[in-house]
Amino acid sequence: MKYFEDITVGERAVVGRHTFRADEIKAFATRFDPQPFHVDETAAAGSHFGALVASGWHTAVIWMRMTVEQRRRSTEAARARGEPVAAIGPALGLRELRWFKPVYVDDTVEYASEIIETRASESRPNLGLLTILSTGTNQHGEPVISFISTTFVERRPVKE
Amino acid sequence: MKYFEDITVGERAVVGRHTFRADEIKAFATRFDPQPFHVDETAAAGSHFGALVASGWHTAVIWMRMTVEQRRRSTEAARARGEPVAAIGPALGLRELRWFKPVYVDDTVEYASEIIETRASESRPNLGLLTILSTGTNQHGEPVISFISTTFVERRPVKE
Repeated sequence: MKYFEDITVGERAVVGRHTFRADEIKAFATRFDPQPFHVDETAAAGSHFGALVASGWHTAVIWMRMTVEQRRRSTEAARARGEPVAAIGPALGLRELRWFKPVYVDDTVEYASEIIETRASESRPNLGLLTILSTGTNQHGEPVISFISTTFVERRPVKE
Repeated sequence: MKYFEDITVGERAVVGRHTFRADEIKAFATRFDPQPFHVDETAAAGSHFGALVASGWHTAVIWMRMTVEQRRRSTEAARARGEPVAAIGPALGLRELRWFKPVYVDDTVEYASEIIETRASESRPNLGLLTILSTGTNQHGEPVISFISTTFVERRPVKE
């Protein structure tokens, strides 16, 4: 992760892309969200969705995986360049999680994150607070998911 | 589901209980949240958590599964009694998702839902809106997760 000082409001990055295949949609939902329209094509065809759709939680956790993988890549790249890497805190929660549209079989979702606020921590002078808008958009350019999270990130160490 | 008219603010129901085993924590996180403190005991011991902890998303999706299972049981029970069953809409999102405390290996989380607001839909006279506070509490009585969701539920049909 970059240091707090190097992050500006409006910065947007694509985190990754994922295509939701039928087998994976059903496997996830069988374990975690076994509603008929997530696990069975025939039942889904008769539902208000008209076809099999991914659990909204599935579209959320794929964002999580993409985010972990992207941070890992960016950390490794910084280390390879011999640059220091700022620590980022764990998420303490999120707000305004919205599922706008269903994700159908073979839809590809592009996940992106945008910095919408930066703020120095008053209680912890070595940390800054980032407010991040995360979105997932399908191959038709339609938003399917979004949410807002806040996380701590390290400030650039003061040189003595 | 009960009809909108039969649901009152303050109603609280235990949705289910789940014990998070090490194998399951690691299997979920390997697929969806591969941060070291979710997938590797040794790395977790050296992290600020001090031991392996479940992904926050894992504690959320287990809530989803418990909720689907509980609705299924209550629908089957109502049908067995010959009672009509009100339809409930899909979740369009949620707000204020918070992870208060880590969930460690062998912690048991009790999930509960409480109705915090009921409101007739102005645009759709056959539907009511429920605002629900969902919580997960560990075996020490400490909250580990909570969030608020809003969902449509059918109103009791008007007798002609």
